[in-house]
Amino acid sequence: MPSASTRVPPPERVPQQERSRATRARLLEATVECLVEHGWSGTTTTVVAARAGVSRGAQLHHYPTRAALVTAAVGHLTERRAEELRAEAASLPTGPERLDRVVDMLAAAFTGPLFVAALELWVAARTDPELRDALVPLEARVGREMHRLTVELLGADERRPGVRESVQATLDLLRGLGVANLLSDDSARRTALLLTWKRQLATILEP
Amino acid sequence: MPSASTRVPPPERVPQQERSRATRARLLEATVECLVEHGWSGTTTTVVAARAGVSRGAQLHHYPTRAALVTAAVGHLTERRAEELRAEAASLPTGPERLDRVVDMLAAAFTGPLFVAALELWVAARTDPELRDALVPLEARVGREMHRLTVELLGADERRPGVRESVQATLDLLRGLGVANLLSDDSARRTALLLTWKRQLATILEP
Repeated sequence: MPSASTRVPPPERVPQQERSRATRARLLEATVECLVEHGWSGTTTTVVAARAGVSRGAQLHHYPTRAALVTAAVGHLTERRAEELRAEAASLPTGPERLDRVVDMLAAAFTGPLFVAALELWVAARTDPELRDALVPLEARVGREMHRLTVELLGADERRPGVRESVQATLDLLRGLGVANLLSDDSARRTALLLTWKRQLATILEP
Repeated sequence: MPSASTRVPPPERVPQQERSRATRARLLEATVECLVEHGWSGTTTTVVAARAGVSRGAQLHHYPTRAALVTAAVGHLTERRAEELRAEAASLPTGPERLDRVVDMLAAAFTGPLFVAALELWVAARTDPELRDALVPLEARVGREMHRLTVELLGADERRPGVRESVQATLDLLRGLGVANLLSDDSARRTALLLTWKRQLATILEP
């Protein structure tokens, strides 16, 4: 064995803080995957820990309850998805085409796995008081953030009459379309419908 | 005991067919109530039979599986709700006010117990193949009927460009608003948003 005097660098050490962050990230990813695959009832803390390859002890250390785990998962991944949308939007052209592309990006988000995972929680929370208490503040925060993001991506001027409500309606419409896509592929109908909505929204938003 | 010759009418007999219909109606009502109160996971056939005051045997006779029971419940009550909406709409004034009232009636339906029960099933069916097989045809039928009803109540002319898509968008928007109302009372925001939506819809629908 080399002695210290041979100046071999010490084995690479991952700082504790960074390992914790990686463990949490794995748990949160696994939680959303479980929600998508098995729904709320199949998303137990045991199943998530196994899927993430994290010990039960470590899991309980980071997220002491099932409600804490799933709320953190949807909150964290929504923020990450919002950052991705901002990055994607940065490369979009300006001009009339931009609105179409922004609506398409948002529609993709509202039919993707994160929406499905969040919907599982929203519905389960209706009849589960502990989950409900954890989710209500998250729902309010996610709602505000999605609204702010949409205003920003569309470059909408909310001081003009009807603009704020139309941005909100766009998000509520996309949520409804997300639900309509749960059991069958609704993309053809959705595309036709959004084509009409994009034109109306463009008229409302134009200065 | 009076003899036949005293001409006392025979004890009132409820025909078998009518008793069966009453039993089914009680089971279907109890199913929706259970879905609203306990969600999909708490809506077992045993709980529903007890709530309806119907024997397990009679229940299994009418609805042999849990999927058959819940699908029949949502299908049947959606039809009944559609009839009620038609009846309510018959008393509405004609003129511009009518559109506002129709949208309000539909918004009430999409935030009521039947919507909540249906959403429980839609979400559960995503990860439950038996329920999914039962629900996909129902979802298609309910979607078509709600569209037809809305066109009828609004007196919309679908041959005009954009009208069909705008009627669809209204229903998808209302579905999204229904989901937004699951965990907290969203009525103030919904009212403001729908006020703007109604004005836009009126412009699109006007001949």
